[in-house]
Amino acid sequence: MSDLTLSIDAMGGDSAPEVVLDGLKLFRGMSPGVRYLLHGRQSELVAGVASRGLTDICEICNQPEVVSMNAKPSSALRKAKGTSMWSTVEAVKDGRAAAGVSAGNTGALMAMSMLALRKMEGVHRPAMTAVWPTLKGRAVVLDVGANLDADAEQLVEFAVMGESYARAVFGIEKPTVGLLNIGAEDEKGPDAVKLASEILRTRDLGIEFKGFVEGNDISMGEVDVVVTDGFTGNVALKTAEGTARLVSTYVRQALTSSPLSKVGALLAKRGLMDLRTKMNPSSVNGGVLLGLNGVVVKSHGGTDAEGFATAVGLAANLARSNYMQEVATGLTRVGRQDIAAESVSK
Amino acid sequence: MSDLTLSIDAMGGDSAPEVVLDGLKLFRGMSPGVRYLLHGRQSELVAGVASRGLTDICEICNQPEVVSMNAKPSSALRKAKGTSMWSTVEAVKDGRAAAGVSAGNTGALMAMSMLALRKMEGVHRPAMTAVWPTLKGRAVVLDVGANLDADAEQLVEFAVMGESYARAVFGIEKPTVGLLNIGAEDEKGPDAVKLASEILRTRDLGIEFKGFVEGNDISMGEVDVVVTDGFTGNVALKTAEGTARLVSTYVRQALTSSPLSKVGALLAKRGLMDLRTKMNPSSVNGGVLLGLNGVVVKSHGGTDAEGFATAVGLAANLARSNYMQEVATGLTRVGRQDIAAESVSK
Repeated sequence: MSDLTLSIDAMGGDSAPEVVLDGLKLFRGMSPGVRYLLHGRQSELVAGVASRGLTDICEICNQPEVVSMNAKPSSALRKAKGTSMWSTVEAVKDGRAAAGVSAGNTGALMAMSMLALRKMEGVHRPAMTAVWPTLKGRAVVLDVGANLDADAEQLVEFAVMGESYARAVFGIEKPTVGLLNIGAEDEKGPDAVKLASEILRTRDLGIEFKGFVEGNDISMGEVDVVVTDGFTGNVALKTAEGTARLVSTYVRQALTSSPLSKVGALLAKRGLMDLRTKMNPSSVNGGVLLGLNGVVVKSHGGTDAEGFATAVGLAANLARSNYMQEVATGLTRVGRQDIAAESVSK
Repeated sequence: MSDLTLSIDAMGGDSAPEVVLDGLKLFRGMSPGVRYLLHGRQSELVAGVASRGLTDICEICNQPEVVSMNAKPSSALRKAKGTSMWSTVEAVKDGRAAAGVSAGNTGALMAMSMLALRKMEGVHRPAMTAVWPTLKGRAVVLDVGANLDADAEQLVEFAVMGESYARAVFGIEKPTVGLLNIGAEDEKGPDAVKLASEILRTRDLGIEFKGFVEGNDISMGEVDVVVTDGFTGNVALKTAEGTARLVSTYVRQALTSSPLSKVGALLAKRGLMDLRTKMNPSSVNGGVLLGLNGVVVKSHGGTDAEGFATAVGLAANLARSNYMQEVATGLTRVGRQDIAAESVSK
């Protein structure tokens, strides 16, 4: 029985369509009831779908064009028609699929999603999410690059969207929310961040707001949702990736620096495999542009089958959750209190 | 023979004065010719100085008061007189010492340094540095928190100061400089960052400017100097610290997860000790508020003797270098071309 249909860009990513199809096969093992609309060149997909035994759950939507990984968003938008990416997003817009996934060009996917799905009522700016591994599990950080900045009201909207998102994808009933700042004290930080904190503390938004968090608190898992502007969030995310790579390189060097070290690494093999699993970026793959009338998950372009399956799982979780309704309700609360605040100030 | 006198806040930091004195003893082994003005409570210092055999190179400047680690900068400034921190900075101002070091309250030290040493001519805002471990060695990142933001001209000044700083402390003849952004393409990023890039590319400042770098490029060692505003730099630095701590925890868990893993870790001991050395924050301890008429190094408050010795070494390197003159010359170049640009635009 099919409980869900997802829209998949079969041609997006560095190793499409192989990694995409392998990912779907992998995900079928975890969640057999999902069906797929597979967008891309039929001629390049039929054999791969068949050989992986996916014919019964995949409907191929033939699209001749592929958005190149380095195309500028504006140019990709102009030539959107006929691409697998546009078709993937359109199926979500039309309601033929409950959510979409693409590992293609990030800027193009954001632009097409914005154009096709439009912003939800009450959202001033959509925000891009990243799932972040922490000492306690996982956290969601947003915005990680959909915008360059954010004012207080937009940060509050990100908090509302991020909180619902964390509940949907992590299954936490009451996710905790923190605002990224450079100190924990009330008087520290940029005006927008301080004002957003005041709004989150004082308005009745039903959010478990924990105040300011600092950069080191993200990986420590101090909160489930970290809210920041797109510039800061993007720098933080990439800085963390670079640091993790640096430390991994050090560890590899340490464990291959001498014959004795190599023997040691062999004995510690099981523990080190756990380490590799924990450090595996595939396990946290998938970002979503929140705040649109529909869900399209962006998978990392260089991900493997496991990572693509993770992104598909994210789409399925969101599609099955009350995320959209919750955000709509949350934003209404923000909006209503705006009006209340205005009438008081008059 | 004494070639250099440094001014040391003996009472600053979580474990003062012990860690401070141990650090000086350690540094004496590396650089015997340095003398110290030691600011703090004479009664608490005499015995410790003597027991470490430092009496001949330390002159104690008795100061009864200590700035508390959690005092607000404004309150610390009001009660500055009589504190070991103020006395440390004053000795640099008066020329009795070539540079200063304190592991005390960061905000208070920045405020006192600003007040006593004043900004260099041509500097609009001072910037705080951090030394960052990279795949290729070390990089300097600035500003990591002296300011909340920075306009284009200020970012250019940070680049000039950071470049001279990297030459002085790393001994690189021609340090490479990058601007932190969220993409490598010219058209990406906030206006201030894009304009700063244009200035650094087009003005003849004698700087090896490599364009934009992203968060992951810092740890990869793509450039020697990473320029950003204080908010972004502080978040990036703390995010990297958190990530490094997370990965270290994972590694520790991996190597103690079973008896076999523990034996493996024992065999790989030498390699893992190298790893610990590389990951040791003490080896990159010490930040400097650049752009003042004098050098005061901020050591981490929780550092150990080795870390304090690193900070003292940083102060010695800067004091022995042409850093101050170089920055003055560099800033004159920036300033002159401002005027030139203005007269052209008229």
